[in-house]
Amino acid sequence: MKIGVRVMPRKEVLDSQGRAVERTLRAHGKNLSHCRVGKYIELEIDEKDRQKALAKATEMCEFALHNPLIETYELEVL
Amino acid sequence: MKIGVRVMPRKEVLDSQGRAVERTLRAHGKNLSHCRVGKYIELEIDEKDRQKALAKATEMCEFALHNPLIETYELEVL
Repeated sequence: MKIGVRVMPRKEVLDSQGRAVERTLRAHGKNLSHCRVGKYIELEIDEKDRQKALAKATEMCEFALHNPLIETYELEVL
Repeated sequence: MKIGVRVMPRKEVLDSQGRAVERTLRAHGKNLSHCRVGKYIELEIDEKDRQKALAKATEMCEFALHNPLIETYELEVL
């Protein structure tokens, strides 16, 4: 089963990549009010059961895929 | 309107981050068959019309948010 993990910087944390993208786009006349930049991780897990696959993906996220101090994550089945 | 952009490495391209994550997780006993790592960009665009907002987001993607040689992108309305 394919699981998508969206890892985004917490709102309270300075998202320097987001600021850079914002500034670059604005400097070139593209109008946007806000931008945040995070990671997207696609995991292919040998598990047909949806709940078990999500549980395994959660375990991987908690173990190594995000930094809880500065990031949050969301899972979706792809 | 909030638009999500998922930028992923092309299948033909070596995804070194993905390989690193795969190896690390396997080395710690987590079973996964494949992993790809890309970027996720949330754009907040001052535009209420869905089609117009998507058109603006596409313009930004083509202009600066992805490298067409090595990446593909997908948009979603959030």
